[in-house]
Amino acid sequence: MQKIEHIGIAVKNLEESNQRFAKLLNTIHYKTEEVQSEGVITSFFRVGDVKIELLQATSESSPIHRFIDSKGEGIHHIAFAVDDVNAELKRLKDAGFDAIHDKPKPGADNKIIAFLHPKSTNGVLTELCAEQL
Amino acid sequence: MQKIEHIGIAVKNLEESNQRFAKLLNTIHYKTEEVQSEGVITSFFRVGDVKIELLQATSESSPIHRFIDSKGEGIHHIAFAVDDVNAELKRLKDAGFDAIHDKPKPGADNKIIAFLHPKSTNGVLTELCAEQL
Repeated sequence: MQKIEHIGIAVKNLEESNQRFAKLLNTIHYKTEEVQSEGVITSFFRVGDVKIELLQATSESSPIHRFIDSKGEGIHHIAFAVDDVNAELKRLKDAGFDAIHDKPKPGADNKIIAFLHPKSTNGVLTELCAEQL
Repeated sequence: MQKIEHIGIAVKNLEESNQRFAKLLNTIHYKTEEVQSEGVITSFFRVGDVKIELLQATSESSPIHRFIDSKGEGIHHIAFAVDDVNAELKRLKDAGFDAIHDKPKPGADNKIIAFLHPKSTNGVLTELCAEQL
């Protein structure tokens, strides 16, 4: 793990939340991106060298919709930047962590990503991500 | 907000979680500290320039005990480093955010801290912190 790349926050209404987080962080979001495969629309803020990613569901089958239904709005995941998602996923699976994805896949922000299951990480949904080459 | 100073994670068993996070982050925790006023014992890991703080309750009246009771283990709060907690608290209250603490107070890791209520921040319990002078 090189660093924390971003923190993902599940919100009901991206537009309202963008305004709220602009006040909170004292900076505006610098981009918005839809990830159709995940059923989400996202916006990104920078704080120091970490990003805050707000996520709104675009369908009822979206993981973000299900998360908000069961837990309410709030912090959804932590994403760690790694050099090689495949290698790090193998290291962590060998160390006993459960992966949600056996193979990395494309994510928002031009990243290749994979998630660890929160049941093996004290309830913390954990993303590994690397720049897509 | 200068940067994300740390991410707080509520855990049931600090010792077991220290071992799990050492594997996850590929680094061991560099200190443990009890904050009696908050009813918690904490451990700290570094990832890049952000800290991960694990928090275990030391009593049933601890906020961490209540958090785990209602939501389970997981991400508890995000802490932002600020220059002046008082000034930032005033700016955010003026902007419509609800503070849990009207005045900053001492926290772990030699910090002066204050929390915003998650109901005004999309469910994200938000800490402001600065080095204690």
